[in-house]
Amino acid sequence: MAALVIRFEAPFVVFFGDIGDEIYGKTGLGLVEWRRNDCLGQVRLPGCSVDAGVPDLAVAAAKARGARTLIIGSAAVGGGIPEQWVAALCEAAAAGLDIVAGLHLRLATLPGLAAAAERGGARLIDVRVPPPGLPVGTGRKRSGLRLLTVGTDCACGKKYTALALDRELRARGRASDFRATGQTGIMIAGQGLPIDAVVSDFVTGAAEVLSPDNAPGHWDLVEGQGAIFHPGYLQVTIGLLVGSQPDAFVVCHDPLRSTIAGWPEFPLPTIGAVIGRTVGIGHLTNPAIRCVGVALNTSKVPAGERGAMLARYAAETGLPVVDPLIDGVGPIVERMLAEFPA
Amino acid sequence: MAALVIRFEAPFVVFFGDIGDEIYGKTGLGLVEWRRNDCLGQVRLPGCSVDAGVPDLAVAAAKARGARTLIIGSAAVGGGIPEQWVAALCEAAAAGLDIVAGLHLRLATLPGLAAAAERGGARLIDVRVPPPGLPVGTGRKRSGLRLLTVGTDCACGKKYTALALDRELRARGRASDFRATGQTGIMIAGQGLPIDAVVSDFVTGAAEVLSPDNAPGHWDLVEGQGAIFHPGYLQVTIGLLVGSQPDAFVVCHDPLRSTIAGWPEFPLPTIGAVIGRTVGIGHLTNPAIRCVGVALNTSKVPAGERGAMLARYAAETGLPVVDPLIDGVGPIVERMLAEFPA
Repeated sequence: MAALVIRFEAPFVVFFGDIGDEIYGKTGLGLVEWRRNDCLGQVRLPGCSVDAGVPDLAVAAAKARGARTLIIGSAAVGGGIPEQWVAALCEAAAAGLDIVAGLHLRLATLPGLAAAAERGGARLIDVRVPPPGLPVGTGRKRSGLRLLTVGTDCACGKKYTALALDRELRARGRASDFRATGQTGIMIAGQGLPIDAVVSDFVTGAAEVLSPDNAPGHWDLVEGQGAIFHPGYLQVTIGLLVGSQPDAFVVCHDPLRSTIAGWPEFPLPTIGAVIGRTVGIGHLTNPAIRCVGVALNTSKVPAGERGAMLARYAAETGLPVVDPLIDGVGPIVERMLAEFPA
Repeated sequence: MAALVIRFEAPFVVFFGDIGDEIYGKTGLGLVEWRRNDCLGQVRLPGCSVDAGVPDLAVAAAKARGARTLIIGSAAVGGGIPEQWVAALCEAAAAGLDIVAGLHLRLATLPGLAAAAERGGARLIDVRVPPPGLPVGTGRKRSGLRLLTVGTDCACGKKYTALALDRELRARGRASDFRATGQTGIMIAGQGLPIDAVVSDFVTGAAEVLSPDNAPGHWDLVEGQGAIFHPGYLQVTIGLLVGSQPDAFVVCHDPLRSTIAGWPEFPLPTIGAVIGRTVGIGHLTNPAIRCVGVALNTSKVPAGERGAMLARYAAETGLPVVDPLIDGVGPIVERMLAEFPA
């Protein structure tokens, strides 16, 4: 599996460059939130006003404290990489820190960086670029348990829900892994595959590589992508579904949306429709697939209406319904463990 | 559209190298069969024993007769390109002939070929490589009519059926285009997109680019890929389906198969199941989608049983059922024209 999945080592430092607004540092701030224990500190250039609340370290100090990796946690305005950032990245690579980024351009194209990495024995890891050699999907049944987060749309909590389920299972002493399928998730997990960047023929195979055979009772929490009724991205969602062969899935939903975000002519499907279609297609590689919960984003729902809304969705679906950010995912984990006793 | 679709110019010559067995010349032989009028001849090296029955031409003679393109219609044993082939290809490129190939390696990596093409002002066209810049699918309704060939499995006649429908429509004076989605189809059509090589996020968008807005009553015959119940490739099939937004589809089926070829643990779906799933998913971008026929491969069915078999499938499905190679596709075209009067 190793060579087919992107992977980098902890501990790491987060690089924020000289950005002046948190919006450009979202990736790095999320990383610190989810992997505080593996984060030695932040590397900030003069003028940077974003602060993740971890120690400021120069590259040499980070190296001295045992950092293995520098992760670019910021985006420059316009998407490029300013000259002063490149100099700092070259210093880190020459010192032997692997450099991780989710940029649109490849790290090796930044002037001097490939040479610096060569000198320092460092790797340049673009998390948007799938490794070569991914296989075609076999459909073969694998051991262990898998849960996939799906959604009525994109950007409605699939990554967060999978991460929260992983954290809750571990807190209860269960064996589990978060399986990242997008660049932010890969940075958080330290491994994964950018499934939407995989050549179409190999999407099911990539999903198989991502959640390999595992111990009985072990859960893989697979980060979903796209949405099964999405006119642009459903093929990514479906390849990931069939390759992941999930035993269980959770539907993520924003109750205030009425159309697909960015595709206003396409009405948002109901949760029931998403469950039906996901079971219908997922059945191909896992006939026992079932829905075990609904994750609602209620951040914009008035506090006084939240309880009634959750209860209404629970009554409609017969499933545990939570807002993972407010309620946690305990009820969903309880359903998972009840439906799939070890 | 031009820049987003692979396209090359006629007339052309077919290059067979020095192969000794027709099996290695399948692509070129098919090309001569489907595009006899655009084919000036064949280029064969000493020792070649495959003959497409068209005039033998040296590169200089081909150029003198107006050839625009040389298409590599053969594969060397082992998949590489022998030295003596490269020399001949360099001569053609230096003479200004565009070179077209569906090789696993890129033409530009063959020694001297890029330089020869530069000298001759020729293009090197790898039909396995999608053009850059493909968009995400919009789901927007386009004008004109579209038919997609689908299948109960891979390799059961989807390309041939689409080509035959295009030919039959043209013979009846209807406006139509074959839309190629695989390398052989692209070589035959002189244009298209290798849909299974497109990055997953852009498959629906690629399908939209491939069959753009067209005149009312004009048919695009879109070559299907994979199969909708295929455990390895269904994501390609489904992205192509939703991006093509077909008004009509034909199911291609090999009645002697009982499992997915190469995936013996997966039973072949019934034609009815394929129709149901195709309508269910295709509905997203074309609510009026419907099946207009079944194309059976009866080449291995005893002659005495063929008629009864066609009749049985016709009774089961209520659709015109033909073997395109034996019966032609007239009955399916009649159904198309009846269901979608101009």
